[in-house]
Amino acid sequence: MSKYKTALFIGRFQPFHYGHLFAIKYALEYSDFLYIGLGSSNRSHERRNPFTAAERILMIKSALEKENIDQKKWMIIPIPDVKAHYLWTKVVRMLVPKFEVVFSNDPLTLTLFSEESFPVIEVPLTERDKFIATEIRNRILEGQPWEHLVPEPVIKIIKEINGEERIKKLGK
Amino acid sequence: MSKYKTALFIGRFQPFHYGHLFAIKYALEYSDFLYIGLGSSNRSHERRNPFTAAERILMIKSALEKENIDQKKWMIIPIPDVKAHYLWTKVVRMLVPKFEVVFSNDPLTLTLFSEESFPVIEVPLTERDKFIATEIRNRILEGQPWEHLVPEPVIKIIKEINGEERIKKLGK
Amino acid sequence: MSKYKTALFIGRFQPFHYGHLFAIKYALEYSDFLYIGLGSSNRSHERRNPFTAAERILMIKSALEKENIDQKKWMIIPIPDVKAHYLWTKVVRMLVPKFEVVFSNDPLTLTLFSEESFPVIEVPLTERDKFIATEIRNRILEGQPWEHLVPEPVIKIIKEINGEERIKKLGK
Amino acid sequence: MSKYKTALFIGRFQPFHYGHLFAIKYALEYSDFLYIGLGSSNRSHERRNPFTAAERILMIKSALEKENIDQKKWMIIPIPDVKAHYLWTKVVRMLVPKFEVVFSNDPLTLTLFSEESFPVIEVPLTERDKFIATEIRNRILEGQPWEHLVPEPVIKIIKEINGEERIKKLGK
Amino acid sequence: MSKYKTALFIGRFQPFHYGHLFAIKYALEYSDFLYIGLGSSNRSHERRNPFTAAERILMIKSALEKENIDQKKWMIIPIPDVKAHYLWTKVVRMLVPKFEVVFSNDPLTLTLFSEESFPVIEVPLTERDKFIATEIRNRILEGQPWEHLVPEPVIKIIKEINGEERIKKLGK
Amino acid sequence: MSKYKTALFIGRFQPFHYGHLFAIKYALEYSDFLYIGLGSSNRSHERRNPFTAAERILMIKSALEKENIDQKKWMIIPIPDVKAHYLWTKVVRMLVPKFEVVFSNDPLTLTLFSEESFPVIEVPLTERDKFIATEIRNRILEGQPWEHLVPEPVIKIIKEINGEERIKKLGK
Repeated sequence: MSKYKTALFIGRFQPFHYGHLFAIKYALEYSDFLYIGLGSSNRSHERRNPFTAAERILMIKSALEKENIDQKKWMIIPIPDVKAHYLWTKVVRMLVPKFEVVFSNDPLTLTLFSEESFPVIEVPLTERDKFIATEIRNRILEGQPWEHLVPEPVIKIIKEINGEERIKKLGK
Repeated sequence: MSKYKTALFIGRFQPFHYGHLFAIKYALEYSDFLYIGLGSSNRSHERRNPFTAAERILMIKSALEKENIDQKKWMIIPIPDVKAHYLWTKVVRMLVPKFEVVFSNDPLTLTLFSEESFPVIEVPLTERDKFIATEIRNRILEGQPWEHLVPEPVIKIIKEINGEERIKKLGK
Repeated sequence: MSKYKTALFIGRFQPFHYGHLFAIKYALEYSDFLYIGLGSSNRSHERRNPFTAAERILMIKSALEKENIDQKKWMIIPIPDVKAHYLWTKVVRMLVPKFEVVFSNDPLTLTLFSEESFPVIEVPLTERDKFIATEIRNRILEGQPWEHLVPEPVIKIIKEINGEERIKKLGK
Repeated sequence: MSKYKTALFIGRFQPFHYGHLFAIKYALEYSDFLYIGLGSSNRSHERRNPFTAAERILMIKSALEKENIDQKKWMIIPIPDVKAHYLWTKVVRMLVPKFEVVFSNDPLTLTLFSEESFPVIEVPLTERDKFIATEIRNRILEGQPWEHLVPEPVIKIIKEINGEERIKKLGK
Repeated sequence: MSKYKTALFIGRFQPFHYGHLFAIKYALEYSDFLYIGLGSSNRSHERRNPFTAAERILMIKSALEKENIDQKKWMIIPIPDVKAHYLWTKVVRMLVPKFEVVFSNDPLTLTLFSEESFPVIEVPLTERDKFIATEIRNRILEGQPWEHLVPEPVIKIIKEINGEERIKKLGK
Repeated sequence: MSKYKTALFIGRFQPFHYGHLFAIKYALEYSDFLYIGLGSSNRSHERRNPFTAAERILMIKSALEKENIDQKKWMIIPIPDVKAHYLWTKVVRMLVPKFEVVFSNDPLTLTLFSEESFPVIEVPLTERDKFIATEIRNRILEGQPWEHLVPEPVIKIIKEINGEERIKKLGK
């Protein structure tokens, strides 16, 4: 049984991994339609944000298609950073059509929506899953295996764009 | 027969009207998948840009659903303005996954992609259709009928958000 | 009898004139404490915004002191423009402590707060008073008398900073 | 005996504490009127800048009123950050009416005004007082007592806005 | 006889024309070394600013070389626009090494430096020469001859980059 | 024998040192004309970027003149930072006339141009030379000798602007 008509899940997807996939499936259990807010959409080619929004959109799209998640039930919306954090919730509302609840694991997002008394749900991830994106980037940087942590289409995209090389170069 | 795997159609959709619908159908005839770039995504509540990106996304989504255009074949991507126009094509590439051709009727978009020798296609609109968004905004401002110029779901959205009142207030 | 504990009056004060003085007195009748939001605080040396925030703050301060309006009852807060108008109300809240109502004659301010169902009060100015700032700038530009339209301390400040010359030079 | 007609004291007030109160009293001994420049007015909800300008303005206002410091002698002016530090002194002058001296303990502010040969006075704080804001934020983060380091009205404001919770959440 | 060691000439050079050439020669009569500030360096592909900074730099460089003006005596420095005009002189100083006088025909530049009591010299152009850039852009737009108004290397550059076509397209 | 007609060398020059001089001479061996892109032109007065663009331009100009490097063969072009790194190459092209190859030691610059399949050449510096700017800033901060690491005119400029004091103050 769905609780919400429309929900929003916010992440940075640097890169998209199994934790994100779990979170999106989790959010879709509680909502008829899910907006997937792609945070820091203006950032790329830096340690914490190696991939462009275009690359990350492709990762999400490919992974969700691979999982046969109905395309009528979600939509990706890139959201740029805002220096003045207080404006962040308003930037989100400017770009994302009406949503009734926010799913996230980002402390800033959770704090800001909570302070406006807006319903937020922290996705019940294990500690490890919370920091998995950082671990993937570190593993790539150090030349360790990382492929088991992301859906197959994401591996393919990262290989095609020479993403490992990019992360290693920027990590110098 | 489809010519392109992926294409991009860029518009501002202030508001979404029958000219846009025609253009999207036209572009989909020539492409397997269409990215719909929503320009000036950071602008709203001004004469030329009365509606927020969130409102315009809903207009496009509702109108395309009403027309039963397969949701597997298109994706909306909001794109903010950039003051330095020369950077515009790069901003587009930062946000939109690989596309092979750009459909548009915006002179600036057509000029900038052409100068990079990138394939562009001007949608074959009548003169009237080119300026229909301006006409709709003017008609609303002056209290004349405008509803026949946009798909039905768009009328509904504009009414719900009191869009006519907004345009009249800002027009003072 | 005061209706509100705290209120906000927003204007651009280019320059501060008798219409503003009336509006502030009017707002103070309905509030115990008045925040005076100085809009477009980052603009100056252009036709519509000849004076800096610093200069306009001095105009307001001097004029209110001259009128013996109790300094415990008001505070000036400069507020910069924001390109994305939808963010404007949030920028205001970021800078101005809690207020219960907004007084203004700016259509954009009134529209944006109204759309959030926030109480707004349009100051009951005559048509002439609404456009008095534009008239003052035009009169200065054309070398006609303007001094009768602003409080005396404002005349003094404009003279001291050679404001007339500035407006004439920029008007070329 | 007052030395300066108008002075400027610049701080970030994250949060306002007894060191700031001392500095403001110190500056008022040497000036007839004191502009209180509230730096980083566009920042909040981050480790070094947890509080919005609106919240900090209220802290300063409440604390100075509690101390019965004459409201005719000071005015708060929020000043946003500027990425190009070299422009900082000019941003200050754009927003703050004429001042004859700058009081501060911020190395950047002192350096930039000194390089323009503008009079600056470093407030004679003890080493401890210089870093007291950082200590307060750390104490709140770690759940240690901090209330003795700030004036009473500031405690009240931080409690009302759930400031401790905010700092703890963002500190994760 | 040279009056100044170092001087600054500011223009937008949209495009570089004989009026600019005269002004630079004039300024070089009064200075040992001339910084040529290229204003609005971040703008291009718009009516008033069709050419990029890169294109304009090439125009100036080619034209001055053609005239055998000693390369040891001048240097081009691109300067971006700043929305807050009051900051403009400081932006200039951030980018241009020490100069003793400013040559310009731009009212804003002349006003802002004058207000700081900095020496400015208005280049003694005829009324026609002052508006020659606008005229050139209009002539290109309307397909009238314009080549006689700019130095030969500038004609060549505009032709090579299809500048006429760009201006016509953007003028639609 | 020259390989390229026009080349670009990008650095931050904080400050200009013997490594930069070597790199410029190296690049000039392979090119007829060298654009010297001065990165982070909008930054100064911070640890990693103590000097303004104006100061750095003077350092480069003085050092190259001292070495009698023909002024017809190089031109300095300041380039501001861009938050969205993906746009960086486009910002460079907006400001720098046509170049055929990029010389640099900055990992980000090398990565971004490489990803566009644009020719890049890493200047063959020793490890020490790569980090010499950081070392110079650290040495100044700690009061150790640094003068042997930069060309003589650079020493003079840093002394004249009290650069050592600035670095020490900001390092607090």
